[in-house]
Amino acid sequence: MASAPALGEFELIARFFTRQSTADPSLAVGIGDDCALLDVGTDHLWAVTTDLLTESVHFLAEVDPAALGHKALAVNLSDLAACGATPRCFFLAIALAAPSEPWLAAFTQGLFTLAKRHRCVLAGGDTTRAAAVTICITALGTVPRGQALLRSTAAAGDDIWVSGELGDAALALAWRREELTLPERPALAAVERLERPTPRVELGERLRTVATAAIDVSDGLAGDLGHILQASAVGAQIEWPAVPRSALMRELAPALQQQFALAGGDDYELLFTAPAARRPAVEQAAAGAGVKVSRIGRVTAAGGLSVVDATGARMDTACDGFDHFQPRGR
Amino acid sequence: MASAPALGEFELIARFFTRQSTADPSLAVGIGDDCALLDVGTDHLWAVTTDLLTESVHFLAEVDPAALGHKALAVNLSDLAACGATPRCFFLAIALAAPSEPWLAAFTQGLFTLAKRHRCVLAGGDTTRAAAVTICITALGTVPRGQALLRSTAAAGDDIWVSGELGDAALALAWRREELTLPERPALAAVERLERPTPRVELGERLRTVATAAIDVSDGLAGDLGHILQASAVGAQIEWPAVPRSALMRELAPALQQQFALAGGDDYELLFTAPAARRPAVEQAAAGAGVKVSRIGRVTAAGGLSVVDATGARMDTACDGFDHFQPRGR
Repeated sequence: MASAPALGEFELIARFFTRQSTADPSLAVGIGDDCALLDVGTDHLWAVTTDLLTESVHFLAEVDPAALGHKALAVNLSDLAACGATPRCFFLAIALAAPSEPWLAAFTQGLFTLAKRHRCVLAGGDTTRAAAVTICITALGTVPRGQALLRSTAAAGDDIWVSGELGDAALALAWRREELTLPERPALAAVERLERPTPRVELGERLRTVATAAIDVSDGLAGDLGHILQASAVGAQIEWPAVPRSALMRELAPALQQQFALAGGDDYELLFTAPAARRPAVEQAAAGAGVKVSRIGRVTAAGGLSVVDATGARMDTACDGFDHFQPRGR
Repeated sequence: MASAPALGEFELIARFFTRQSTADPSLAVGIGDDCALLDVGTDHLWAVTTDLLTESVHFLAEVDPAALGHKALAVNLSDLAACGATPRCFFLAIALAAPSEPWLAAFTQGLFTLAKRHRCVLAGGDTTRAAAVTICITALGTVPRGQALLRSTAAAGDDIWVSGELGDAALALAWRREELTLPERPALAAVERLERPTPRVELGERLRTVATAAIDVSDGLAGDLGHILQASAVGAQIEWPAVPRSALMRELAPALQQQFALAGGDDYELLFTAPAARRPAVEQAAAGAGVKVSRIGRVTAAGGLSVVDATGARMDTACDGFDHFQPRGR
């Protein structure tokens, strides 16, 4: 396989894994959204999502196992949140080189603490052996019929919102790799954001009847917004000054800030759209969930994503999202 | 992790992953059966199972990718069959070193051919990168309320049945590893059984109202029967002459036959129990599904598993099932 030309992850999915249509009538939404939505014949749909994390790619061998247990579930709960689903249960498949009791005790502590917070029950799984630690979690949640948040339903004129602050996870990764120097205390806070992201579950639930479209920011703001734009056949204008960034981030050179906040992955914030008339409802949902939200731009009828500065002038930014099979080269 | 003492897979599951009880009322059956059963509030339960396959452990790097695509889904469909569930949809998480088009074309051909046969729709997934090919499939199926086949419901006096023939997969693996010499044509047929196991989906469906307990034989007859015995708090006596074996298998020395047919994994046949009064119903279910079944023993009130020969004398056999974290040492 090594000699073959590299395909992009999204091209690969499109070409090889969308062969089957959503032929089963119980499949309300299939491949291409944060979750699949199963119509089981009740007033709730079941949202299902799966994520595979592998050592060296998604985490380092020396990662704190408690943080790993947290993050492995958090990334799935974040997908449920992006659909507005309430977590119900999850399945854990884990491959280990050799099970160590202290490692497993810490891993399960991190995992179950987050699971308990969201009343998400471990319902089954698989344990096996592998040279590298590999974790695959499949999480299931429920969302009232007709209220699931999709990527494909943003409309021209909608506001674009994002929760929390963007780019700290990518910033922390760069600091960990010694690609930049930072004061230690705020840098460690950013590392916490990288290692223990907070899935915006309650915000997702409260946005069900408020937002028009949503996605979680796992691959970077520009890339993930791009998924909404493509699925909804719309464009977007982002106001760079409005993109929420931490005090630590604002100390950096502007080009670095743009790189981290626009193209950096692993933030697991909610990115969503809503009509301007619902601004009070968005603010109310955010206050209810105890999460900061920022209005960062608007959906446009014309295709493409542009980023503008305080004067409204278009900026030249590196806006590509993360693709596992492409060199990042930034 | 490497210096830690090795724990057994099942002990590990028991100690670290059963911390949470089945607290969610929608979880009818949780950890410890072939599938979890979700009560979604209709006349059907949803059966969910997940399996993780990793290169070098579950398959070799040089495996035929079409066979791998088949087997990755087959092992999950076999778990659904063991619950009597009808496959509905599946989720595929796959990690690849570098996606090659011919490899992916063959893999998806094997995967989707089996999926289509069982009308099991790919509903979502995750693609990512890893040094070794890793595949995690989560499959969902439905079973009428009250008819799911469990491990915990075998009763003393029940017959013990198994579908197909046992041990050919382990035999083929040994041949592939050049641990024994066999005539090539029948050996290749055994390899087909190893690489493209047939999940007994239709048999499982037809056994819903016939069998008292069921499991699929993935870790070896003795080990998997042991799970039923433990869950049902019963014992069992297996009549060795009745254990179904291929003509190729019967050419081998008796000790090898016992090793492969009693302790060899990867057969993916259905092992189930049923009252003696339902023998005609079992035969009818098997005939309807077009699968051979053999009555190989009976459930006893006393604990433990014994294997007897044609004279009824207890045999001394190596009856341990496969444990991913223990050296096999047989």
